[in-house]
Formats: sequence, structure tokens, C-alpha cells
Amino acid sequence: MKSDHSHDIGAKSWLASANDAGTPFPLQNLPFGVFRRAGTNEAFRGGVALGDQVIDLAALSEAGVFSGLAADAARACAQPALNAFFDMGKHAWRALRHALFALFGSGGPQDAAKRCLVPQASVEYGLPARIGDYTDFYTSIDHARNIVKLLRPDGAVSPNFQWMPVAYHGRVSSIGLSGQKVRRPCGQRMAAGAHVPDVGPCERLDYELELGIFIGVGNPQGERIPVASAEDHVFGLCLLNDWSARDIQAWESTPLGPFLAKSFATTLSPWIVTMDALAPYRTSWTRPAEDPQPLPYLSSAVLEESGALDIRLEVALETAMHRRDALPPTRLSRTSFRHQYWTLAQMVAHHTVAGCNLRSGDLLGSGTISGPSRDEAGALIELTQAGHAPIHLPTGETRAFLEDGDAVVMSGWCERPGYARIGFGENRAQVLPAKWD
Amino acid sequence: MKSDHSHDIGAKSWLASANDAGTPFPLQNLPFGVFRRAGTNEAFRGGVALGDQVIDLAALSEAGVFSGLAADAARACAQPALNAFFDMGKHAWRALRHALFALFGSGGPQDAAKRCLVPQASVEYGLPARIGDYTDFYTSIDHARNIVKLLRPDGAVSPNFQWMPVAYHGRVSSIGLSGQKVRRPCGQRMAAGAHVPDVGPCERLDYELELGIFIGVGNPQGERIPVASAEDHVFGLCLLNDWSARDIQAWESTPLGPFLAKSFATTLSPWIVTMDALAPYRTSWTRPAEDPQPLPYLSSAVLEESGALDIRLEVALETAMHRRDALPPTRLSRTSFRHQYWTLAQMVAHHTVAGCNLRSGDLLGSGTISGPSRDEAGALIELTQAGHAPIHLPTGETRAFLEDGDAVVMSGWCERPGYARIGFGENRAQVLPAKWD
Repeated sequence: MKSDHSHDIGAKSWLASANDAGTPFPLQNLPFGVFRRAGTNEAFRGGVALGDQVIDLAALSEAGVFSGLAADAARACAQPALNAFFDMGKHAWRALRHALFALFGSGGPQDAAKRCLVPQASVEYGLPARIGDYTDFYTSIDHARNIVKLLRPDGAVSPNFQWMPVAYHGRVSSIGLSGQKVRRPCGQRMAAGAHVPDVGPCERLDYELELGIFIGVGNPQGERIPVASAEDHVFGLCLLNDWSARDIQAWESTPLGPFLAKSFATTLSPWIVTMDALAPYRTSWTRPAEDPQPLPYLSSAVLEESGALDIRLEVALETAMHRRDALPPTRLSRTSFRHQYWTLAQMVAHHTVAGCNLRSGDLLGSGTISGPSRDEAGALIELTQAGHAPIHLPTGETRAFLEDGDAVVMSGWCERPGYARIGFGENRAQVLPAKWD
Repeated sequence: MKSDHSHDIGAKSWLASANDAGTPFPLQNLPFGVFRRAGTNEAFRGGVALGDQVIDLAALSEAGVFSGLAADAARACAQPALNAFFDMGKHAWRALRHALFALFGSGGPQDAAKRCLVPQASVEYGLPARIGDYTDFYTSIDHARNIVKLLRPDGAVSPNFQWMPVAYHGRVSSIGLSGQKVRRPCGQRMAAGAHVPDVGPCERLDYELELGIFIGVGNPQGERIPVASAEDHVFGLCLLNDWSARDIQAWESTPLGPFLAKSFATTLSPWIVTMDALAPYRTSWTRPAEDPQPLPYLSSAVLEESGALDIRLEVALETAMHRRDALPPTRLSRTSFRHQYWTLAQMVAHHTVAGCNLRSGDLLGSGTISGPSRDEAGALIELTQAGHAPIHLPTGETRAFLEDGDAVVMSGWCERPGYARIGFGENRAQVLPAKWD
């Protein structure tokens, strides 16, 4: 989607908090999630973030202010998961976006709309969709190079990396939302030089900064999605923390890949920023001339023009000491999704090339997002050189890996001259002590 | 569960076909599935196989012939997926088994029960549960050794194999039932000696003979399941074909494991044989004295006494020539699940040791089941020595790997002196030609 009037930087809302300079959720954003009033037994239903409010789509649908496709879309959003809405496809997504933009824009009628607002401070979130399958990719060449340097000093990135967006299946049951308390996992580790593994609490607990990609429209089993139309199948993106137990991972992952080192938890931010909202922040995607060019099924002219997304990302750490001393979280790194070696469209096209069917609500993880410079790394193992170069925090503490009580706080936003700044909100989750024996 | 009266070899049903010598579904079996009359829009509901009939559990529940826990269990089975029934736990599973055994046993009242029978020949099956996650294990040391010998002549089985039941996450969306037509996948392969991959239809399409394990009762995230009680969480088993594209697999699997080489299809047999029905066919599980003994969290005295299951398994191949000449499928191999290096209980305990939550209806694959001798191999790649020793079929054809039109037919059964022979029925699926251009 090219930029349209719903991206106008001059557009304001009659809802004052949507016009605040610092809000991640101005009128140009309109991200989707699922919520209810906290502490109630209300049904979860779809909502859209605007300023410091949630637009209750069930209430809005009930109020009957929309007509046509936008009304049908709002009705689909009244359910406790957005799968049916996703499945309606991009025309429905766009119709609802434009209807919301008009209703909450400064000239819009306020009476009915006001009654559909719920303060974000008073809600709790649900997973935005029933996630049928979760696939985690491996698409940052800087991450791949950093990891290989640490783990195999004489090695190179695996030869398939430059030819395909490598991926593996992840675990759905343990996916949670920002606010999740993650118990430190236990498992088998083989110490360097040992011949017998031991088992106990993970000693190298890490996060991975990723984007979560929600599939909007799926494909029939046996029919691949061409790269040129692949993005029509993507609804939008959120922030994803791919928790990783590095000691468990090192011992278990040969030959079948990571399993328990990842499956204990994955944390998502509650709001999905739509591909429509992200349109102005597209940028060209190129492959270094000395690298292999993508095979035809992963190649398209549109990709080169605008296949990458300049999504700025940041990870911060808040320890118990930060909380005690009322210090803000310490920023660990900042990078952009535009550095990724493979694009969203290529991930979708590759995922389906062998006939695997995607379904509405499926989740893809982008893989760790690390940029070219050292302070752009998306995981502690990279930032601390596998623990050899601990980070010094303003609290006087150091960190090689995560300690109990640590909260990992991810945030993301887009900005570009002539366009509004839109945000993803926050993805925050905290480590609980292990339970063993 | 020790053997009880529901395993009595002398027990007969008033339904004659349940007493036929050849039936996989005598009164002692009573496997669960989901079905409806073929070609109708009826709701899918739970059923139990008996002789050549399906006991319609929705109709039975409606008829009100059971009381107490068995009635509650039958009511839970009236739904289009058995997750709620699974979640009731082993007392409910057993209560329903015993009530069915009494109702359909030779002394049972026949009038109401007869009205709840539907001929198997007239039904179609649904997936027995909403599968939240699918995990595929790697637990046959004979399979592991066979594969390593073929792919890395100087290599050894990875060192973690003897310490843990290695596993990886599989794909849920493409799981189908016996009768599935599987389109030959396409994808990237790197030919030996080449420096650039090509993409196209798989040239080394294979099956893997496995058992599918349905989780009955899950565990909360962060809480592991002890090995001693792990089997209480297992509802039962079916036959599973883990289709594998060997050329795609070889190129994509480093470092994150198999992905598109597996995710295009997985085929299940429709009937789940319960752990209760399998009780008489338990056998001792031992670890060779020279091998590492399991770590405490994978170890229990009960395992050594009866941790293994003597489930006989067979794979046969039916080509288009077999069908043209009305020949029966050609048996490719026969083995038993008792050879497996790791048990069901160990798989469940290991899966949860890091805190990963299992949910009712989750599916585990046992991993390829190969026995110690050459003709007990559970995949073509082993039987044909990676294609170097093609199989000769009675049709005059040879097979290195699967050809279009080939049907893979898996079957399984248990037998033991003094007990009935119970079967799993059939898992049959056929290869369709690739779509590529």
C-alpha cells in the first residue's frame, strides 16, 4: 500500500491524548489488539489503540456507526480473537482503518464514538489471535555473524543463510503477552570439557529482540504464495521476545535445532501495527553485489524498491535495583529492522514453497534483529561476547546474562520526515527464579 | 494401569463383527476418534471403533444409557474434538471404557446401543482433537545409527542422543488423516559438489514410520511433569507418517533443524488406541549396561519394569501398478516400538523439564521407529541405503524413493499369549505430482 490520507502528518483527532507528542498511538497508527476491563469477567474483544484509550470495536459495532465493509470488519473484531477479521483480507482491514480514521479525526462525530472508549490504564490484554502455528526465522546476517564468531571462531555462517530465510517451528502454548512473568527454565547442559551432562536452572538466560508477524490470510495446503503478492497475506507486526536458554540450547540443538531452550516462553506486545500503518516507513531492500542474488521465487522488483521496513527498535533492562532506586530501565541496544537480510515477503514465500499451509492468525518471528555495529545487537550473548564482557549498569551491577528479577523492556517505533511518529508500545517481561527439586 | 477385566481374552460382544478373528477392533480395544456420515454436513463427534461399526458417542450420550462419570465422559465426547474429554483425566477415560465394555459385551442390553452404531464403511473421519502444538521426537537409536552411517560415514550419533529424548517442534496446520493426498513438495536443494542451490520438485521423497501420542492432560507453564506420573498425561496412540523430503532436508537443516522438508504434510490414522487398552502389551525397558543410565529426572523403577510397549508395526507400499494389477501392497518392513531408546514417560518428562506447558490434545511424534535389523527400518532412506540399493517390487518396479501415485500404508497391532489381538487400523496416504513451473 502506498501512503494515503490516513498517513497525513497534519491529521489530528478530537481525542486530545492522540495528539500528544509522545504517544505511540496517534491517529495515523490505529494498531489492533484484544482486551477487556482488567479484573472483570467480561469477554475479550477486539480494540484499537488511540492515544491513551482503547477503541472498543465490539461496542462500536453495536453502536452501528459504520456501514458496508467497515461495519462487517468491526463486527468480526467483536470476537475474542481476531482470526475472522484477519481472514477478511486487506480490503476489509483498510476499510476499517479508514472508517476509524474518519470517525476519530477532528471533524468526526463524537457522541457515539466517545462511548466506545476505554482507558488503556484500566484494561488487560489477550492474545490478539488464536495462533495455530508459530515459526521463528533467522534473518539477520549481523546476528548470524556475531553468533558464529562467538561459538565457532574458525567457522562461517551456514551456507544456506544467504540462499533462504532459514527458520524452525516454535512453541505456541507458552506464548504470552507483555507483563508475562517467565520462570527461569531448568534443563540439561554439558559443561565445557565434561563427559556427563548435569541438569538444573539455566545459567545463561537471554532474550532475543524480534518482530512478531501475524498472518492475515492463509494459503491452501500444496499451493505456494508468490513473493510478489506475499505481503497481502500479512496483517501486521508486534514486538517479540524470543527468550533463550543458551546453555540448554548449546547441548540440545544438534541435530534437530532448538527445542526446550526456547519453548518455555515467548512474549508478545499486545498491539499489532498494521502493514497499512507501516507503509510510509518502507525503504529499499538490496543485497550486497558480492552476495548471491535471491532465486526467482524469492525475488521481485517491488522488494528492491520498498521491501525493507525502517522500524526502530530498542531493548532496555530493569533490574530489581533499578526499581528500588526508581531508576528508568537502562538501554542495552538500539537498531532498525531495515538491516534484515530477508524481507517479510520472502519469509512468507519461502514458508509456503514446499506446500505448507499458513492460516489466519499464524505467527512468524523475524529472528533476532541485530544491526551492523556492536551496540545494535539484539541479544545479550552478542552484547556481552557470550558473557566475557559483562555490561555495567548505572546501578553498579553488571550483567553477563539475565538474573532473577530482571525485566526486559522492548520498544519500537517508526519516524520519517513528513510523517507522524508511530509506536508499537512496550514489550515488558520479568524473570522469576527457577523451581528445581 | 495393570490389566483388568476389560482385557479378558474370553470377552465377546453381541456385535458379531467385533468377534471376527481379523478385526483390529475387538471389545478389548475400544479406540477413540471423531467422525460423521460421509458426504453429509453432520457435525463431527466422538466415536469408538467396535468391529466394523462406529459407536456414536453423541447418540449414546443422548440416549442416556450411562450414569455418573461415564455419562459425563460420553457427553464430553459429543463435541467435534475430544479435547474436553481428554482434559477429564484417566478416571473419566477408564469409566467410559468400562461402561462401553459392559454395554457392548455379550450380556449387555442391546436395544438403545444398537441405535448408536454407524457402519465404518459409511463414515469420514476428523482430526480427533484440536492440536495446539505438535512435537516430533528422535528416539530410535537404530534409526539414528542408520542415518548417521549413510550421511556421515565417519561420524557418530550426536552425543546428546543417549542423554535425552531429542525433539523439535513440528507443523500443526498440515496434519491430515489417513486418506490424505500429499502433493510432492518443491524446494531448494544443493546438489553434491554444486555451489548454487536449485529449486524444484523433491527428488528424494520419503516416509517415516512413527507413533502419534495424544496428550490427555497438560501441565501449567513453569511446572514440570515428573517421570513417575508422566503417563497419566497420555491419552493414547495412533499411527503417524512423518513425510520427509530428504534433499530439501539436507540443505535447510543446519543450524536450526528440519523445516519445509517436514511441514508440507503429516498423516495420522483416525483411531487413538488408549493407554488402558495397551496395558497388557507393556514390557520391560532397559538400557544397555555400557550406555549412560538416564539422569534422575528421566529415571523410574516403573519404567524398567514396564516402560516399553510391544506395538508391532508394518509399512507397505502400493504403487499405481499394484492397483492396475489388483496386487496387495508390498510389505517394506516390520518392527516393534519396544526397541525405542526412550519411553513415552521420558518424552513427556523431558518435554516439560524446562517449564514448557503441554495442553490437552497436543500431539507428540515418537520419531522414526526402526528396529535393530535391516528389514526393521522405518524409512526408505534406511531401507534403500539412501537410494543406492533400490527395493524390487513384485510389479517389476524398483523404488529408491517414493514416486508419484505411490501410497504408503502403515499398520500396527498388539498381540500377546493370553490376550486379544488389538489393532490400530490403517494409515494410508498417497503422493500427488508436484506443481512447479
